[in-house]
Amino acid sequence: MALKVRLRRQFLNVVLVLILAAGPAWADAPVDKAPVESKISSFLLDNGMEVVVIPDRRAPIVTHMVWYKVGSADEPPGKSGIAHFFEHLMFKGTARHKAGEFGARIAEIGGSENAFTSDDYTAYFQTVPPEALETMMEYEADRMRNLILTDAVIGPERDVVLEERGSRIENSPESLLAEEIDATLYQNHPYRIPVIGWMHEMEKLNRTDAVAFYDRYYAPNNAILIVAGDVDAGDVRMLAEKTYGKVPRGPDLPPRIRPTEPEQNTARTVTLADPRVSVPSFSRSWLVPSYHAAEPGEAEALDLLSEILGGGNRSRIYQALVVKSGIASSAGAYYDGSKLDETAFTVYGAPRGTAKLDEVQAAIDVEIALIAKDGVSEKELESARNRFLRSMIFARDNQASMANLYGTALATGSAMKDIEEWPDRIRKVTAADIQKVAAKYLAGDHSVTGLLLPSEPVQN
Amino acid sequence: MALKVRLRRQFLNVVLVLILAAGPAWADAPVDKAPVESKISSFLLDNGMEVVVIPDRRAPIVTHMVWYKVGSADEPPGKSGIAHFFEHLMFKGTARHKAGEFGARIAEIGGSENAFTSDDYTAYFQTVPPEALETMMEYEADRMRNLILTDAVIGPERDVVLEERGSRIENSPESLLAEEIDATLYQNHPYRIPVIGWMHEMEKLNRTDAVAFYDRYYAPNNAILIVAGDVDAGDVRMLAEKTYGKVPRGPDLPPRIRPTEPEQNTARTVTLADPRVSVPSFSRSWLVPSYHAAEPGEAEALDLLSEILGGGNRSRIYQALVVKSGIASSAGAYYDGSKLDETAFTVYGAPRGTAKLDEVQAAIDVEIALIAKDGVSEKELESARNRFLRSMIFARDNQASMANLYGTALATGSAMKDIEEWPDRIRKVTAADIQKVAAKYLAGDHSVTGLLLPSEPVQN
Repeated sequence: MALKVRLRRQFLNVVLVLILAAGPAWADAPVDKAPVESKISSFLLDNGMEVVVIPDRRAPIVTHMVWYKVGSADEPPGKSGIAHFFEHLMFKGTARHKAGEFGARIAEIGGSENAFTSDDYTAYFQTVPPEALETMMEYEADRMRNLILTDAVIGPERDVVLEERGSRIENSPESLLAEEIDATLYQNHPYRIPVIGWMHEMEKLNRTDAVAFYDRYYAPNNAILIVAGDVDAGDVRMLAEKTYGKVPRGPDLPPRIRPTEPEQNTARTVTLADPRVSVPSFSRSWLVPSYHAAEPGEAEALDLLSEILGGGNRSRIYQALVVKSGIASSAGAYYDGSKLDETAFTVYGAPRGTAKLDEVQAAIDVEIALIAKDGVSEKELESARNRFLRSMIFARDNQASMANLYGTALATGSAMKDIEEWPDRIRKVTAADIQKVAAKYLAGDHSVTGLLLPSEPVQN
Repeated sequence: MALKVRLRRQFLNVVLVLILAAGPAWADAPVDKAPVESKISSFLLDNGMEVVVIPDRRAPIVTHMVWYKVGSADEPPGKSGIAHFFEHLMFKGTARHKAGEFGARIAEIGGSENAFTSDDYTAYFQTVPPEALETMMEYEADRMRNLILTDAVIGPERDVVLEERGSRIENSPESLLAEEIDATLYQNHPYRIPVIGWMHEMEKLNRTDAVAFYDRYYAPNNAILIVAGDVDAGDVRMLAEKTYGKVPRGPDLPPRIRPTEPEQNTARTVTLADPRVSVPSFSRSWLVPSYHAAEPGEAEALDLLSEILGGGNRSRIYQALVVKSGIASSAGAYYDGSKLDETAFTVYGAPRGTAKLDEVQAAIDVEIALIAKDGVSEKELESARNRFLRSMIFARDNQASMANLYGTALATGSAMKDIEEWPDRIRKVTAADIQKVAAKYLAGDHSVTGLLLPSEPVQN
């Protein structure tokens, strides 16, 4: 059975972080135009399945992904964890292919596979030689509708996800704190509920829940097929019609409109003290719009703000706290814009040596206040913008990155056009736009602060 | 149109507070046996409506109440406020009686009426001379099914509830803070959502929502009729059959099982600073079982714990903080046991003079820790127990109190027998039981603290 990975961050940011971690000097060089690659194409099958083809002929490899537009935030009340649990069940057998056969086949041809569940989507992918693409499609189309979901299948797999929660969350003070920060930041929206589910609800997930979830959400008209690599759009269309095209359309789903947040008027603090914690740390989050939920330009400005404020070792927070004053061993900021609904902008830090946690917090507050008051320089903006634009270019160099980027965006409410125009929208962000979103969204009186403390009292 | 009242506390506690506020010496006198009143009776109509009759012939007055087993915690996701909004709509017209006619009729005969919505129930009542009881039943049975819910009715009334939220909540820092404390204390259960609703969701409530809510919940098999006062069970049965008995049974409703809380591992703080606040204050709440959700005896022990710890001016907290050290101008504790699901145990306080808020908090923590460590004395227990038992006797002296007591209990999962046996169960609580619930539930590392502060920074 395949390992399961859960991604919660904007994929683009992940790409950026990977690229910028190395910190090459040329990453700051101006980029006026991204190289045009017009070969990416998309079309719909008759049953409503969206198909995106991203050709990359440099090596005989293909990345085949199916994204379902369903994640933990779409779960019925009281059924937390069903989306992720279902991801596991997708590795069970169908009438045609018994459990394990798909994975064995991939291993046999030297390929790899994986799957992940987030708040907004669930995705399955394989990386294989091009000649195996049709086989992948056959298997993937087969399990879209034909899983055998008996109690004998459900029960043991529920134990597996319970065990997964035990080892990933219950054993980790960081993860337990992160869960309760989300549950405090979101008072109404289902993003307050952990993707993996809450133990007491996961324990009760059953066959009825699984079948209802499968019948509702696993259908071609709720799925996006992305094929990247050594392929040709015409071939992909032919193979997709031959495999996925045979799967009947599912029920028409209503728009993905979830309960939204009320106006928030309080500053909240969530504290977890645990003997397993050696160095205290903190995070502070604010609700901000995602790309999908934002007014035009605001998400792009938030992305650049997070980069300038705390997006790596050239950022203001890193330079001030880690390099100059040295009070922090780590500090930064991130913005998770690839969500369907209102999302979080977060700053974080941990003290170094004898520095106190509240010094670190105060120093970060100073950096935020400075941008809200005086804005950012043209030089900072240009440098951050260039890093973002380069990230898109570098993403093109990796077929899996490109497939992920398109899948994430399309599954969280963006259109093909939005992805294509993103570099232009990033180019248009001004220093004033960045100052404006900092002042508008990052006010302390409605933030949620998480404190992870050693269980021996620390002075802070 | 009638005024609407929202009750969120256990009614019994309210009775207690009213009685104990005067603090008569005899309230501490031993009570070995409550006087037996065996006249309270209950029965079901054929359509499933439960009827309770509480005779009290001392004055020619009757309290007529209908309780619906639906409150804000039963609302569909994203429709917060519909239960309370619907309470308002119940004062609109039917085909038989135009809007305002019911109220005018009550006023004409010198009666009074009111209604209230809580998390778990919605109730309507009138106090009238006995000869008007049949008329009240006719009107109440008529509006149970026959409301005319046009957009012309809905729109203006939605403006009324929006205005009500504006004046009661938005204009009150205390209320805004209380809302976000609930939204933080409850991470999953709908008690996190305000009874009146969140503004942004209330604004969208429409005719479709109202009709769906009415059709689902307003039916005799989801209602409890309580008649208290100068009546006879036989007459009530005859009148109820003649009026409510004609209303057809509604859909069978599933058990009221709502999403429950996950294990909570963090201490949370919710802070609201506002220029309208002059004296800072704090509250600290823990999730604890309600009467309906508790293991046998635990709710009774929590009730007595709240009384001994902070239930009036003889309580430990009051004596220590207000009387002896004088650091607090107010301080106490309460437990809201009359809920269907897991509820809150809360302590609170405000500093006096130059005392600091955190001194008050620390002094209350000391009192909790003392009980958790050393328990309570037999004398304290006996005194608190006697006050509780007397409260039940005094409640009997007021027909509206009795009607409320039975309605609240029956609408939150208790049976007639539970109400009758409550004094015996209170008698059985031991000092060890109280120590045990204090130690089990009131641990600081998973509490939610609310801080209401002047917006000028205060030293604390």
